[in-house]
Amino acid sequence: MLTATLLTDFGLADTFIAQMKGVMLSINPEITIVDITHSIEPYNIRHGAVALGMSYKYFPDGTIHIAVVDPGVGSSRRAIAVDTGKYILIGPDNGIFSLIYAENKTTVYHITDTRCYRNPTGATFHGRDVFAPTAALISKGLRLEEVGLPIGDYQSFDITPPSRTGDNTITGEVLYIDRFGNIITNITAAFITGCGFKLNGRLVPLKESYTQGIDGHLHALINSDGYLELFVKQGSASRNVQAVTRSGDKIALELSD
Amino acid sequence: MLTATLLTDFGLADTFIAQMKGVMLSINPEITIVDITHSIEPYNIRHGAVALGMSYKYFPDGTIHIAVVDPGVGSSRRAIAVDTGKYILIGPDNGIFSLIYAENKTTVYHITDTRCYRNPTGATFHGRDVFAPTAALISKGLRLEEVGLPIGDYQSFDITPPSRTGDNTITGEVLYIDRFGNIITNITAAFITGCGFKLNGRLVPLKESYTQGIDGHLHALINSDGYLELFVKQGSASRNVQAVTRSGDKIALELSD
Amino acid sequence: MLTATLLTDFGLADTFIAQMKGVMLSINPEITIVDITHSIEPYNIRHGAVALGMSYKYFPDGTIHIAVVDPGVGSSRRAIAVDTGKYILIGPDNGIFSLIYAENKTTVYHITDTRCYRNPTGATFHGRDVFAPTAALISKGLRLEEVGLPIGDYQSFDITPPSRTGDNTITGEVLYIDRFGNIITNITAAFITGCGFKLNGRLVPLKESYTQGIDGHLHALINSDGYLELFVKQGSASRNVQAVTRSGDKIALELSD
Repeated sequence: MLTATLLTDFGLADTFIAQMKGVMLSINPEITIVDITHSIEPYNIRHGAVALGMSYKYFPDGTIHIAVVDPGVGSSRRAIAVDTGKYILIGPDNGIFSLIYAENKTTVYHITDTRCYRNPTGATFHGRDVFAPTAALISKGLRLEEVGLPIGDYQSFDITPPSRTGDNTITGEVLYIDRFGNIITNITAAFITGCGFKLNGRLVPLKESYTQGIDGHLHALINSDGYLELFVKQGSASRNVQAVTRSGDKIALELSD
Repeated sequence: MLTATLLTDFGLADTFIAQMKGVMLSINPEITIVDITHSIEPYNIRHGAVALGMSYKYFPDGTIHIAVVDPGVGSSRRAIAVDTGKYILIGPDNGIFSLIYAENKTTVYHITDTRCYRNPTGATFHGRDVFAPTAALISKGLRLEEVGLPIGDYQSFDITPPSRTGDNTITGEVLYIDRFGNIITNITAAFITGCGFKLNGRLVPLKESYTQGIDGHLHALINSDGYLELFVKQGSASRNVQAVTRSGDKIALELSD
Repeated sequence: MLTATLLTDFGLADTFIAQMKGVMLSINPEITIVDITHSIEPYNIRHGAVALGMSYKYFPDGTIHIAVVDPGVGSSRRAIAVDTGKYILIGPDNGIFSLIYAENKTTVYHITDTRCYRNPTGATFHGRDVFAPTAALISKGLRLEEVGLPIGDYQSFDITPPSRTGDNTITGEVLYIDRFGNIITNITAAFITGCGFKLNGRLVPLKESYTQGIDGHLHALINSDGYLELFVKQGSASRNVQAVTRSGDKIALELSD
C-alpha cells in the first residue's frame, strides 16, 4: 500500500483538502493518504518548508509528499516533482522544498505532461487540479521522466546556518514554535558547550528532558531531532521569551566561559 | 476499496467523529474514511449543504457521503439515504442535501429498517447510532431498497439563484468565506461582462488569478468551481468588504455600461 | 485490516502526529490509523483519560489505542501496554488509562524490550520513539509478553463516583464540555428521579432530546452514553451555567421531593 502525504496552508475548515483527496482516490483508490499539517501560516513558504523538513523522513520509502503553500498559483511559477531516490515530492517551484534540496541529492522535474492536469485546470487551485492528480498517477506507475523535463534552476532559499560570532556568542534562528510554546531553533548540539548559556542576559540551564525543569523557569534541551529547544516545564517558553515570536526570528546565545 | 466521507458540525476537539469511525470500522474494516470537514458552523444546515455541494463530486463513483448537521436529532425528522446513481448520501432530512437535489436526479429513502439502528439508539447522536451504521452496512452490500421506503416529500431549500435586476445590477449571495478571507459567491461567469464591476460604489477589477491582484486592493476572479470570488492578493477580502460577513449574505454588483 | 487510534494533546498544527504515523506506516503499511482527538488540553491527563474512556469501546475488536498525554516524558515514568482481552492500549504509566482499568479486567506490561524503542530514543517524544513503534510491531504480531514484564503497581486515579448526600442532593462532577457547550456529567440515569431538579436554585427540566428544549433555557437529558447532560437548545449550557467551566468541576443537583 503506497502512502501519500499532504502539507498545506489550507486549514481544515474549508473543503480544499477533501477535494484533493477525492481527486486522488478517484485515480487510485488504494492509496493511503496522511495529513502532515494544514495549519501552515497562510502564504508562508518558509514555514511550510520547515514543517516538511521536520517530518518527511519518518515516512516509508516510496512515500509521495504533496506540499502546497502556493501564493503564486496561476502565475508562471512552475509545478515540480522532486526525486530524492527514496521519496517523491510534488508542489510549486517556490522554495518549499528548500530543506529537501539541502539534505538530499535530488532530480527536479517540471510537470508539463497534460495527463497531470485536470481538464479544465483552473488558475486558483493547483493542489486539486495539478499536484493531486500528478501524485496519484505516479502512485499508479507514471514515471517521473514522463511528467516533464528535468530542470536545474529551481527555487531554493537558505535557512541561515547557526554561527559562532564574537568570543562566545552563537547566533541561530527559530525554526518553529510548537503547540506547547516550545521554541525550536536551528542550533545543533555541536554548537553548545557547558551546562547552559545566557539569553538576553538571563541564565538558561541545559537539561536532558522537560521534567528536569523547574516550574516557571526557562530551560533548554537538545530535542529528539537534534536541535536546541527552549522550554518552560508545563508552561510556555514562547510567552516567557517575549522577544522571539515566530519562525525566522534571530536568537543569540552567550556561552559561559 | 470503498470510500465513505464525513461532513459534520461536530468539530475536532470532542470524540464524536472517532465514535462514528469506530462504529463504521467495526461493521466494515475495509472502508476508507475521509473527513470532508467538521468545522461547519454549529446547527447551520445551509453552511453544511454548501460545503457538501462544493466537494461531493470530486470523489470516486460509489462513494458514500455522510452529512450530519442535525439540530433536530431526536425529534420526528426522518433519517434518509439519497441515491444519485453515482453517489449515496446519508443524513437527516432537514435540507442538508438541497444542492444534491438541485444537481442530480435522485431517489430518497426513509431509513427505517432496524438493521440500520444501533441497539440501543439514543436521542442525541444519530451520527453514531443511525447514519454511521447505515453507511457501513451499505458499503458491505445492503441495498438501498432494504433501508426503507422511497419518499417524495423530503426537505429542501433554495439557494436563491443570481439575478439581473435594474439595468446592470447582478444580485447574488455569498456561498462561503474561506480560510484566506476569499468571498465565494453563487454568481457564475455567464452573469459577468466587461473587465470589472462596482461593489458599494468601489471599482473591483476582474482578474484571472490571485497573482494578478495589486496588494491591498479588492479584486474578483472566476474561481476553479466556476463561481465569482472576491479576493485581496495575500490579504483578506472578507476584512476588506466589511458588509459581507457570512454565508447567505446578499451581494449586489453594478456592471459597467 | 487492523486499526490503531491516536489520542494526544499535540494539536494539529505541528508535525508530531504525522511523525508518529510515518513511523507506524514504515513498520506496518497495512495498518488503518484513526485520530480520536489531538485537542486534549496540554498536560491534562484526566481530560485525556475521560476522552479515551468515552470512545475506545466503539472500535473493532483488536484495535490498538495509543494515548499520549505525557508531561513526564524523559523521567522514570514507565511506558506500558494494557491488555483488556479485546483491546490493547499503549502509552505512559501516568493514569491516562484509569477509566480502562475501572471498566475492564486488564493485564499491564512494562515496555522494556529494545525492539520497541527507536534508535536513538530521545527524551522528549516517546509518542514517536516508543509508543508508535510498539503499537506497529504489535499490529504485525509481536506478542504482549514480548514487550516486557507484567506489573501490578501502575498509576490510576479515581473519577469520584456520583453520590447522594443530604436528603435529595446528588453530587457529581463534570466529565467534559463539548463543542456545543453541552455539559456532560458522570451522573447516570439511576441517580435521577422525577422530571427535573434544581441547580443553584434554578429549576432544570429533564427532557428526552435536545429538540424538546425551550430556546435559551437550561435543560438536562440522559445522553447516548447514559450520562446526565445539561444543554440549551441550539445554545450553550456552558455559557448558561457560568459556575461550571471545565472537566473535574463539582456539580450538585437538588432533586424535587
